[in-house]
Amino acid sequence: MRLVALLLMLMTMFIPSALAQSVALMPQPAKYGVSGGQLAVDQNFSVFLRGARDARLESEARRFLLVLSRQTGLTIAPKLSTSPQATLVVQIDHASKELPELGEDESYTLSVDGSGLLLKAPTTLGALRGMQTVLQLVTPVTNGFAIPIVNIDDKPRFPWRGLMIDVSRHFQPLDVIRRNLDGMAAVKLNVFHWHLSDNQGFRVESKKFPKLHELGSDGTYYTQDEVRGIIAYAAERGIRVVPEFDMPGHSTAWFVGYPELASAPGPYEIERHWGIFDPAMDPTKESTYKFLDEFIGEMAKLFPDKFFHIGGDEVNGKQWDANPQIQAFMKSHKLKDNAALQTYFTNRVQKLVEKHGKTMIGWDEILNPDSPKTIVIQSWRGAESLSQAAKQGYRGLLSNGYYVDLNWPAARHYAMDPTGGAAASLSDEEKSRILGGEACMWSEFTSPENVDSRIWPRTAAIAERLWSPQGVTDVNSMYERMAVISARLDFVGLNHNTSYGTMLRRIQGKDDFQALRTLADVVEPVKDYQREQLAATPPTQSTPIIRLVDAARPESETARLFSQKVDAFLAGTADAASKADLRVMLAHWSNNQSDLNAAMSTSYPLQEAAPLSQNLSALGAAGLAAMDYLGKEQAPDGWKTQQLAAIEQAKKPGGAQLLIMVADSVEKMVQAVK
Amino acid sequence: MRLVALLLMLMTMFIPSALAQSVALMPQPAKYGVSGGQLAVDQNFSVFLRGARDARLESEARRFLLVLSRQTGLTIAPKLSTSPQATLVVQIDHASKELPELGEDESYTLSVDGSGLLLKAPTTLGALRGMQTVLQLVTPVTNGFAIPIVNIDDKPRFPWRGLMIDVSRHFQPLDVIRRNLDGMAAVKLNVFHWHLSDNQGFRVESKKFPKLHELGSDGTYYTQDEVRGIIAYAAERGIRVVPEFDMPGHSTAWFVGYPELASAPGPYEIERHWGIFDPAMDPTKESTYKFLDEFIGEMAKLFPDKFFHIGGDEVNGKQWDANPQIQAFMKSHKLKDNAALQTYFTNRVQKLVEKHGKTMIGWDEILNPDSPKTIVIQSWRGAESLSQAAKQGYRGLLSNGYYVDLNWPAARHYAMDPTGGAAASLSDEEKSRILGGEACMWSEFTSPENVDSRIWPRTAAIAERLWSPQGVTDVNSMYERMAVISARLDFVGLNHNTSYGTMLRRIQGKDDFQALRTLADVVEPVKDYQREQLAATPPTQSTPIIRLVDAARPESETARLFSQKVDAFLAGTADAASKADLRVMLAHWSNNQSDLNAAMSTSYPLQEAAPLSQNLSALGAAGLAAMDYLGKEQAPDGWKTQQLAAIEQAKKPGGAQLLIMVADSVEKMVQAVK
Repeated sequence: MRLVALLLMLMTMFIPSALAQSVALMPQPAKYGVSGGQLAVDQNFSVFLRGARDARLESEARRFLLVLSRQTGLTIAPKLSTSPQATLVVQIDHASKELPELGEDESYTLSVDGSGLLLKAPTTLGALRGMQTVLQLVTPVTNGFAIPIVNIDDKPRFPWRGLMIDVSRHFQPLDVIRRNLDGMAAVKLNVFHWHLSDNQGFRVESKKFPKLHELGSDGTYYTQDEVRGIIAYAAERGIRVVPEFDMPGHSTAWFVGYPELASAPGPYEIERHWGIFDPAMDPTKESTYKFLDEFIGEMAKLFPDKFFHIGGDEVNGKQWDANPQIQAFMKSHKLKDNAALQTYFTNRVQKLVEKHGKTMIGWDEILNPDSPKTIVIQSWRGAESLSQAAKQGYRGLLSNGYYVDLNWPAARHYAMDPTGGAAASLSDEEKSRILGGEACMWSEFTSPENVDSRIWPRTAAIAERLWSPQGVTDVNSMYERMAVISARLDFVGLNHNTSYGTMLRRIQGKDDFQALRTLADVVEPVKDYQREQLAATPPTQSTPIIRLVDAARPESETARLFSQKVDAFLAGTADAASKADLRVMLAHWSNNQSDLNAAMSTSYPLQEAAPLSQNLSALGAAGLAAMDYLGKEQAPDGWKTQQLAAIEQAKKPGGAQLLIMVADSVEKMVQAVK
Repeated sequence: MRLVALLLMLMTMFIPSALAQSVALMPQPAKYGVSGGQLAVDQNFSVFLRGARDARLESEARRFLLVLSRQTGLTIAPKLSTSPQATLVVQIDHASKELPELGEDESYTLSVDGSGLLLKAPTTLGALRGMQTVLQLVTPVTNGFAIPIVNIDDKPRFPWRGLMIDVSRHFQPLDVIRRNLDGMAAVKLNVFHWHLSDNQGFRVESKKFPKLHELGSDGTYYTQDEVRGIIAYAAERGIRVVPEFDMPGHSTAWFVGYPELASAPGPYEIERHWGIFDPAMDPTKESTYKFLDEFIGEMAKLFPDKFFHIGGDEVNGKQWDANPQIQAFMKSHKLKDNAALQTYFTNRVQKLVEKHGKTMIGWDEILNPDSPKTIVIQSWRGAESLSQAAKQGYRGLLSNGYYVDLNWPAARHYAMDPTGGAAASLSDEEKSRILGGEACMWSEFTSPENVDSRIWPRTAAIAERLWSPQGVTDVNSMYERMAVISARLDFVGLNHNTSYGTMLRRIQGKDDFQALRTLADVVEPVKDYQREQLAATPPTQSTPIIRLVDAARPESETARLFSQKVDAFLAGTADAASKADLRVMLAHWSNNQSDLNAAMSTSYPLQEAAPLSQNLSALGAAGLAAMDYLGKEQAPDGWKTQQLAAIEQAKKPGGAQLLIMVADSVEKMVQAVK
């Protein structure tokens, strides 16, 4: 058995069975081999825990059975077996510590044969990761469900694989956090970075400084009991929780209750707009550090993880410039500019963090020549700054390129490698300081209803980048597997798929919204920070997040597949069925406008879809005509010029802040007409 | 103001504004008048409670704000206003009792003007009903949200408007029950009939007879605390909870723990199949009544409602026939047949129910000449038996025609009137004994995942039948409003819409399932009890409920709209856009097969879609050809005969147990070709 497994490992991957073909593993394991055959899965599926005992492993094994039951519809009771003849035997050498820690062993091996599965791991953590792999292996077959005969030897590439969620700009209730932790566990992410304070809200209860949450949160904050509940929930799933309290900037919400912390007198209100704002803590007053000492002390106890994030980004320095006392302080302390003043602040705070037993982590800006080598830099600026830090001996994380709020396609995130770009030329030792990365969900335009759809499924591609070997880069394979994993994430409770329909139904105002969905399926929200730029009136914290741009997926699968079909068609490699398909899609779009009748509506979320719908109709008609002209007919004079102008127009996002993603492909078709 | 309101009420409904047009009220109020203009709704929407105080009204008013916030995306804190200048003023004369009772006043009046809403009701119950109307009135407009200026004077036609859920054949967890109670409240239903025991499971904890739930439920039952929680949750929403313990038949699950209750020695196992089974209680043993006395006593305390349902349906009598002691008893007691024996049983049980302070309710079979006039008959047999009961002086409920598990179209349920059919000729006094009706959700083929889609939205049509005046019968209006209400029900947490996608994604095995959805959108599960009849192997309690037939909606909206378009086309009243639409739909279906590629799949839920998909393709092609031939072209010889034969074939449900609902309309098109 062991030899067979070894042989399988040594071979390059081969996919001999139809079942193995339909199985999608994401992140892809470090090493795996598939042979023929399968293991049937039915309602008698059972789990036996062998070796060291661990309460967490037991509860997670029960949850494994629950998810398996949901995913298959099989009636499987979430009870562990007492028989070593169980379908799945899980064996660990020793239990992990109660709370996961950076760098713990997460490796596991899994071997499947015709009689069962054996999952072995040195620690509980590895077993948790392996059970997620087992869930991904179960798939329906002709007569029920099965798992392919497979051997897996897996471990992560990076020890820090995170997801940050900003709960300040828009609060996210506990159930949102919990289901996202379940999603993280499903794709083997292991750090939940909780962005708990910012200008727009202070979201955690402080018993020492109650005005922080009482005045800084509109009443939507987490109690300390709730925080402990989330930390326990995350730990069960092998996920660390790292809190972030952003300072000295991004801190208006602190000043509503404690204006004395700020560099200008106040009074302050919770910030309702988006952007970079002036308020910043006063780094020159000892009272600021006294406050932070007590505050960090309180939070260091509440959050048991070794790492403590102090933000540190985007201080515009205007309050400092305008305050004569601060200017005098800078002069007397020979601080030549605001950057030097922030360095002074950061280094004082670092000592407080250290005093309370924690390692400081912060965004790029915290790095300065006096920083101790223990701190960790989270790079929002990019590979250059990350590799600089690594060269100087600092540990770092990549987040540049992983901002899921920017509505990039998954492939673009997938292409970002923490040791790519400027970091590629680092020495092995320097590279080892790059701990991994984090997907970042900034929440200007997210509600509990659409936040999952901004995070998932694209974060699964980032999770694969951080777990799988560096050579796993096949984009087509990634998209194919991500489509499978995305559907599976429904069964851990994420609503990234289901809320799409709910939001479109709200916009349409009724159940029958096929034409609206046809339109929504081919559009994407504008990219990067264009939403703020295109807004007629600035969006605020209380703007309802119910528009088409809020419902539309960050990446249009329909447009991606259409583009592949068009490319094949133009290359002359499309078969008759594929051509017919193209025609039906184009005719559908061309005709969609009459179905949608958006102009008749009196509802603003539907009204703004009207011009988009007209543009989609025009694109459909142009594509259909192009197919005709590319065949036998002759295009009339001026047709091409006219169409290209119309397409150019259709590409503009306009007030709806949406891009029609099939415009480029239709343009290619029109361009190809002689 | 009062005069204006009165004038509006006296006028027939008129719809002067676009806003009023897009508002859907369901059930339609008893009387309402709409005038021009609207009241803006924004995040400052507030509620003030005037008049008598009631804790239930306060908590429901907060929940009103929560649902309003979800439905609009507006940030509205669920806090009550202390200002009488609030947007919505709710005024009650006196608080209802803590638990709702049959026949309580549920009336309310609602007047809206440019400055706010005034909701007045004699009781808390009426105010709860009125707040649901307010939620239905809120709709998006060009610059936000608004409520039309409207005056409503509303009260229910029947005092008993119920939904029965069978949790025995498949258990339904607490969250399913809770969200369905929220759905019931949204359409003003007021009785949750909880079918708690049957052959396939005994679902409530009994402290007196613990083997009932311990051995009769596979561990999936409600504890008494959970039951109390559901009763409180329902009462908050003005909903009574009536428990049903089916006896003497439908009781196999009781006998697993207590075989001595049965008419044959046993041992017994929980029944896993569907149908009518032999086991029945032994009505001849005094020990049976001693057991039932204690059991009913325990449950009568647990369930505070005045009514207690003892089932009583479908005893096949085989165990009685085969038991010599029972035969001897019948002879000595001059009980001429099994019906007489059941009457003997029913009347003994009725006295026990009465002894414990309750009024007995049961299915048709419990009625016999010796029954006291206090009992209530729930008619599953139909109007004839219901009107017979009413003539004899019994109160009754209609459920015949309201079985939502039979996959009928909403219009068919909507056409059933509790005082229609044989009951139409009853005197007013006799009619007054007809208390209302209940939608019934029998659960052979329902999981927590698809149960909502079997109940909703069609139960909203039944709710309207039971609340609105008898003359409210416009089917088109019903469908239009139901489509709006169905979309709104997402926001109380029902998953009838969202689980459709989840289940289709599971079948497809990935996110991209457009072709599968195209197919699923035009099919319906077979009707009545055909699923059992068509099954190759009998389905059981542990058959996974994940097939296309489990996901497909009981009523295809696409097919209904297609049929309207085809009728217009054949009548020559279709405009060019509508014709183009027809073509696109048909082309889409015709081409769908190549997209679906179901035959390539190795997964059984997808595989069985393959023949359906082929049939849909053929129907699409036939419809397209018919459109051509109905225009200018000449149909070739034999074309029509061939197409009609193919359509006939496509109408057969086959192993997938699904009907393609567009077949009839395509047949009409082909028939129209000369």
